[in-house]
Amino acid sequence: MIFNKNEKLVMIGDSITDVERKRPHGEGRNDSTGKGYVSAVNALFHSVYPELSLRVINMGISGNTVRSLKERWQTDVLDLEPDWVSIMIGINDVWRQYDQPTIKESHVYIDEYRATLDELVKQTLPSVKGIILMTPFYLEPNANDPMRKSMDEYGRVVKEIAEKNNTHFIDIQAAFQPVLEHIYPAALAWDRVHPNLVGHMAIARAFLQEVGFDWNR
Amino acid sequence: MIFNKNEKLVMIGDSITDVERKRPHGEGRNDSTGKGYVSAVNALFHSVYPELSLRVINMGISGNTVRSLKERWQTDVLDLEPDWVSIMIGINDVWRQYDQPTIKESHVYIDEYRATLDELVKQTLPSVKGIILMTPFYLEPNANDPMRKSMDEYGRVVKEIAEKNNTHFIDIQAAFQPVLEHIYPAALAWDRVHPNLVGHMAIARAFLQEVGFDWNR
Amino acid sequence: MIFNKNEKLVMIGDSITDVERKRPHGEGRNDSTGKGYVSAVNALFHSVYPELSLRVINMGISGNTVRSLKERWQTDVLDLEPDWVSIMIGINDVWRQYDQPTIKESHVYIDEYRATLDELVKQTLPSVKGIILMTPFYLEPNANDPMRKSMDEYGRVVKEIAEKNNTHFIDIQAAFQPVLEHIYPAALAWDRVHPNLVGHMAIARAFLQEVGFDWNR
Amino acid sequence: MIFNKNEKLVMIGDSITDVERKRPHGEGRNDSTGKGYVSAVNALFHSVYPELSLRVINMGISGNTVRSLKERWQTDVLDLEPDWVSIMIGINDVWRQYDQPTIKESHVYIDEYRATLDELVKQTLPSVKGIILMTPFYLEPNANDPMRKSMDEYGRVVKEIAEKNNTHFIDIQAAFQPVLEHIYPAALAWDRVHPNLVGHMAIARAFLQEVGFDWNR
Amino acid sequence: MIFNKNEKLVMIGDSITDVERKRPHGEGRNDSTGKGYVSAVNALFHSVYPELSLRVINMGISGNTVRSLKERWQTDVLDLEPDWVSIMIGINDVWRQYDQPTIKESHVYIDEYRATLDELVKQTLPSVKGIILMTPFYLEPNANDPMRKSMDEYGRVVKEIAEKNNTHFIDIQAAFQPVLEHIYPAALAWDRVHPNLVGHMAIARAFLQEVGFDWNR
Amino acid sequence: MIFNKNEKLVMIGDSITDVERKRPHGEGRNDSTGKGYVSAVNALFHSVYPELSLRVINMGISGNTVRSLKERWQTDVLDLEPDWVSIMIGINDVWRQYDQPTIKESHVYIDEYRATLDELVKQTLPSVKGIILMTPFYLEPNANDPMRKSMDEYGRVVKEIAEKNNTHFIDIQAAFQPVLEHIYPAALAWDRVHPNLVGHMAIARAFLQEVGFDWNR
Amino acid sequence: MIFNKNEKLVMIGDSITDVERKRPHGEGRNDSTGKGYVSAVNALFHSVYPELSLRVINMGISGNTVRSLKERWQTDVLDLEPDWVSIMIGINDVWRQYDQPTIKESHVYIDEYRATLDELVKQTLPSVKGIILMTPFYLEPNANDPMRKSMDEYGRVVKEIAEKNNTHFIDIQAAFQPVLEHIYPAALAWDRVHPNLVGHMAIARAFLQEVGFDWNR
Amino acid sequence: MIFNKNEKLVMIGDSITDVERKRPHGEGRNDSTGKGYVSAVNALFHSVYPELSLRVINMGISGNTVRSLKERWQTDVLDLEPDWVSIMIGINDVWRQYDQPTIKESHVYIDEYRATLDELVKQTLPSVKGIILMTPFYLEPNANDPMRKSMDEYGRVVKEIAEKNNTHFIDIQAAFQPVLEHIYPAALAWDRVHPNLVGHMAIARAFLQEVGFDWNR
Repeated sequence: MIFNKNEKLVMIGDSITDVERKRPHGEGRNDSTGKGYVSAVNALFHSVYPELSLRVINMGISGNTVRSLKERWQTDVLDLEPDWVSIMIGINDVWRQYDQPTIKESHVYIDEYRATLDELVKQTLPSVKGIILMTPFYLEPNANDPMRKSMDEYGRVVKEIAEKNNTHFIDIQAAFQPVLEHIYPAALAWDRVHPNLVGHMAIARAFLQEVGFDWNR
Repeated sequence: MIFNKNEKLVMIGDSITDVERKRPHGEGRNDSTGKGYVSAVNALFHSVYPELSLRVINMGISGNTVRSLKERWQTDVLDLEPDWVSIMIGINDVWRQYDQPTIKESHVYIDEYRATLDELVKQTLPSVKGIILMTPFYLEPNANDPMRKSMDEYGRVVKEIAEKNNTHFIDIQAAFQPVLEHIYPAALAWDRVHPNLVGHMAIARAFLQEVGFDWNR
Repeated sequence: MIFNKNEKLVMIGDSITDVERKRPHGEGRNDSTGKGYVSAVNALFHSVYPELSLRVINMGISGNTVRSLKERWQTDVLDLEPDWVSIMIGINDVWRQYDQPTIKESHVYIDEYRATLDELVKQTLPSVKGIILMTPFYLEPNANDPMRKSMDEYGRVVKEIAEKNNTHFIDIQAAFQPVLEHIYPAALAWDRVHPNLVGHMAIARAFLQEVGFDWNR
Repeated sequence: MIFNKNEKLVMIGDSITDVERKRPHGEGRNDSTGKGYVSAVNALFHSVYPELSLRVINMGISGNTVRSLKERWQTDVLDLEPDWVSIMIGINDVWRQYDQPTIKESHVYIDEYRATLDELVKQTLPSVKGIILMTPFYLEPNANDPMRKSMDEYGRVVKEIAEKNNTHFIDIQAAFQPVLEHIYPAALAWDRVHPNLVGHMAIARAFLQEVGFDWNR
Repeated sequence: MIFNKNEKLVMIGDSITDVERKRPHGEGRNDSTGKGYVSAVNALFHSVYPELSLRVINMGISGNTVRSLKERWQTDVLDLEPDWVSIMIGINDVWRQYDQPTIKESHVYIDEYRATLDELVKQTLPSVKGIILMTPFYLEPNANDPMRKSMDEYGRVVKEIAEKNNTHFIDIQAAFQPVLEHIYPAALAWDRVHPNLVGHMAIARAFLQEVGFDWNR
Repeated sequence: MIFNKNEKLVMIGDSITDVERKRPHGEGRNDSTGKGYVSAVNALFHSVYPELSLRVINMGISGNTVRSLKERWQTDVLDLEPDWVSIMIGINDVWRQYDQPTIKESHVYIDEYRATLDELVKQTLPSVKGIILMTPFYLEPNANDPMRKSMDEYGRVVKEIAEKNNTHFIDIQAAFQPVLEHIYPAALAWDRVHPNLVGHMAIARAFLQEVGFDWNR
Repeated sequence: MIFNKNEKLVMIGDSITDVERKRPHGEGRNDSTGKGYVSAVNALFHSVYPELSLRVINMGISGNTVRSLKERWQTDVLDLEPDWVSIMIGINDVWRQYDQPTIKESHVYIDEYRATLDELVKQTLPSVKGIILMTPFYLEPNANDPMRKSMDEYGRVVKEIAEKNNTHFIDIQAAFQPVLEHIYPAALAWDRVHPNLVGHMAIARAFLQEVGFDWNR
Repeated sequence: MIFNKNEKLVMIGDSITDVERKRPHGEGRNDSTGKGYVSAVNALFHSVYPELSLRVINMGISGNTVRSLKERWQTDVLDLEPDWVSIMIGINDVWRQYDQPTIKESHVYIDEYRATLDELVKQTLPSVKGIILMTPFYLEPNANDPMRKSMDEYGRVVKEIAEKNNTHFIDIQAAFQPVLEHIYPAALAWDRVHPNLVGHMAIARAFLQEVGFDWNR
């Protein structure tokens, strides 16, 4: 696994990351890391690699866009002096264009998304051991659905930034593909966005496979 | 994996199984299967084997002893017509002897425990494809601690019944051993009984390893 | 308009009809008729035709299928001695097949749906002046989506029963078509099922156009 | 209809406008525009003219008088840069004179009312496409009732200002006249001020008829 | 005063009598007699005539009509073996005809009202020292208002029954007349039915003047 | 009565005055003047002298001593520009010496009490038509009880200040005397301090008798 | 101490005994024995005599009189098969005569008190090792206060029954005497009945001194 | 006893001291001193030595370490001008190292603990009559348990500081020893840290024995 003993991983994002995490920092006893993929990752780290004493901090905030991340990047990421940072952002950047089309000041269009995410990555790389970028996703199997198409475009931007900056990259939308072939979206997420634990486990597994986690060690 | 498409698994037990599951049956949308090892098992089933459409029903009830299970076995297990049944019981049978020693009618001593668990297994085997028996556990690393010693004795009874009846068997106490070597009990469970998600994930993994689950398929 | 002075209309269905109506009968002061299409219909009746003194009773119950309607038909419809009955049912009959596929006892397949709805209509026609049948709907614009396809099939059954029994018929799915051409589903209903007031108004308008309501009288 | 694609309409007033709208701005998902005439107008806009993508913002605040509006006019109207503004104010200006006669500092007498409303209109006209002024109303059919007489005087002031400034004008009291001929006030509003949805629909319809809304397009 | 030491007075009626009284019997410590005219009467009894040790029991229930009183007369009046009974009923009998005109089964028309009230009085007189009948009222100063006219008719029925059966009689509507000449209804009761403490004190004073209470003893 | 049309009376004190009054000013609709003697006085004013339109403002705050009154006198009395002021203070000044004897900084001894109350009266007299001073009281019939004796001393200080400054004076302790002869303290106030409505009515009556109120006008 | 290893003591009474104990039986973890003298006794038993493993069950119920005890004696005492029973009852028997004098059916006069308590003692003695009778009390230092005098009479009845039946006897009123000489009642109990923990500790100490508890062992 | 009439004792610490005490100062009526050993000490002071009028102030705050105490020492101890100060701190200093090992900034290691506690004692001694130092404790009977070993080391530091500064010293861990020989930890404290009232009474008794309290005076 890419992580070493005592290293610190900050996982930041929107409601998919947040999931009722503790404030101000999502770490510590009980449900401090929330009830989503972050807590699944944390639980698998400590139950399978107890000797590593990894420190996972959930810094997701519901409703966040990449514009929100930028505003709180200094205090919520850099000041925590992480060894590793994972970012999953973009769902709300797209969603607001579809669920409240008239409120245009809430939309984050693709150029701002690309520029901001790239800026955050560049600003952070010098002080960390690595960054893990994850695509936003939409649990809509129809690839021609307008919002799904937008989400895929934002996902491609993530990939592009990952490649340009040489970071880890995980295509979460792709990770959901085999699941969506057998399970209808309504059984994963009533709004096709906020998954139940089945969906969160799929995200956690994709993350863990990228970082070299070994379930059978 | 031992489970086939569309099969139904009933998981029964005490608060370690329950963990805020839905009533009357712990299945369905959202957190219906609770927030413990059952929901982790269910989430890993559906995210990794989505094509199997397995049906997991959490029937745990906090505070239950094997005596409680017997009272509700007909309605809560047999009437559900499961293909598979998992049982993790005994913690309260032992704990009450230690946390409320003066209330003796709340204690379930080892002879009653053995006889009752054996009766439930024998009564159930003819109508199911298999039973998975799990030991109770206590997150106390000191093997000479009186309550830990009692718990180990109850665990040996489970093993004995499993062997006699030819069921699956999982030693949960043993599964915690490598974790307890690196993590102090207070970081897993303040009362050494109710684990956080790290502990539940350790249980889920032990269960999944027994049933032939393949994380990397 | 087809309704005359002092006539009584019972509107029955599932959560789309219910929307927090009063119990046991959804009529009377304040929000007694709920906050959905029934209350919009009622409000337009009394504000535009105040002299008719029409009596609208909302008898919807969230989560109902046609099987649920049958169980309460005597007390919740016939005993109220309505002049008119409107029925919108079927969404949960279909939805359960998609959002909890493993819990098969919660599914109502199309044969049971057809037989039961037909039975209720036939049982009621002799004692009322008319029945208004409305199709179930799904705010999914992709006609090839599996759940949308199922819903369309159930809608065709409603039409078939309406024609056979010579009742009023409203194709609610069709009524949403022009709206869905301009508004993405997420802006109407996060789960594509429970519409906001925009969607309820579209239902109310389709209903009122069928019954000869004149907005400009 | 007088509104064009993508235009923004701010509707401001007192509790009749507010009706549990979202803060700070009454727009967005769910019940953001409240549960009164504003939400009915918004729902009819989007269900009947979905292609226009009109943006309706409810800025009503319960208990407001015209004096309150003046205090928040810059932030709550002008700063939002609306294309259209609707104003319904005056009920509390009058009511306080009748329901708490001893607390004279809470009364807004007719000269202050006229001057303030006129000032707000003049201040706003240069930057918008149009203003819609609505009279306050009182659901008291007896034209000789003292409070009704006062309300009628305030209503005449609204008409006078509308004519002088060449704005749209809607006589809401008059719109209720045909309803009050058939429905006793207690069935519309227990306090003769806060209508149920029947009353709100009457207001919405009067508004929509003034702005050229076509129910049957 | 007509009451003697240790006598028991049961005061029954609707919400005007109830006003949050204690269940099942409105007597005892704190706010047991409610917060309306009954508690004012009780407080004036004990503060001005402390030596009499009168026992006042509030048996009002919100929403009651004379039909409701009949259903509970045996348990709620006769079984308490009162020395005196006061009755104020009829507001809901009339109001329902005006605030929910379509729900006719909730209306109590004047013939049923007269017959039932008379029956209750006749049934009770033999076992008590006296009955005090109070008219229902409506805080509407316009004597031509339809609901006020109805209420006056019901009030005349009370007077007729009082005279026929030779009971005490208090015209509460008349007692409000001098107050309504100076105070607008909205300052007494927003819905013209449920008075604030000013109105309740007016009722209490009318009651006390009828029973010979001396404020200045 | 000493009050004239439209005059304003501020009633200030501790919890006996407060009794859940509205903040910041205890006046207006519903229970704004609280549920104690102030609301009884207000209700009797308006029900018996409706033409006077008196304005009663309850400014009591639970737990206050005369030291607390001094801190808020400017904003809570003088700034309101009353015509009349009533003061009932001193119970907590004494009570704290008995119910928390060790916390001496919470005690207000008699010299500070006298000096402060006298200062407030002198500061206020020039701008008002009159002041009504009421003694604190303790519903303890045993005149030799230590706290009762203290309370009586504080009461004598009130009388002394009233005489020196020529204000109205009401001996509330004396007003309770005839009631206490027949009713045991526990039936008036479980803690012998906070009376039920019987006790509040006794206070209200003593106040009204001092100001020339005529119950039988 | 009179208690031996593993013996069971049931402590029954009214609110002084109850103090938020657990239902149905006041024993077990946390605050199961309540927050009053019973929990203090229990805590001192186990902290000072941990080897005795005494079982204390709190069966007090707020508001109980001796009449209430009789109704539940079989289920709440005898069925529990105690070795020892303590009884403190009578406060409400007396108090109701003083705090709600008009509700005579709530009073338990001294003859009924004596007969019932004697009956309960006689009925219980054969099956237990001993009974501890405690007097009711009233934290009123004035021995001439009417309610205090009544309470003392009831206390003498307890003593008389204890002597006649040869049970343990504790004069709780006397135990409070030295405390009341230095602490005013308001600092022990605002209503002179429900003591704070200081008062409960005084009761516990009186109980423990009677049963031979040794603080310094 | 070492305390004299009217002296003030401030007891400071963590959650074992706090136990729901009142804010900002834990003294006064009802449960102001909390529900733990402080309230037991206070109750025994006043019930056994009522003439001393001792003033006990609970200043514990849950979660505090010695680092937290230092931050609030001026306002929470010195500004209160106590005659005596008791300190029980260190449990969280140790526990955080075991229950959240990855969050190192929450740990207080033994050097910082020693230096800080010594500093607080030295800073306080000049202005008080005496300081009572109590060791932290852990209800773990196994002396080889890692956290118990750490706690014992911190306890030895307390003893060392007490001796060096000549203060009172109480070994709370030792006081629990005889109890732990008979009662399993789970019956005293589910988490082996927060005792039930049995444990708090053991602490109170150890404290009282050190200060010369005489139970039998």
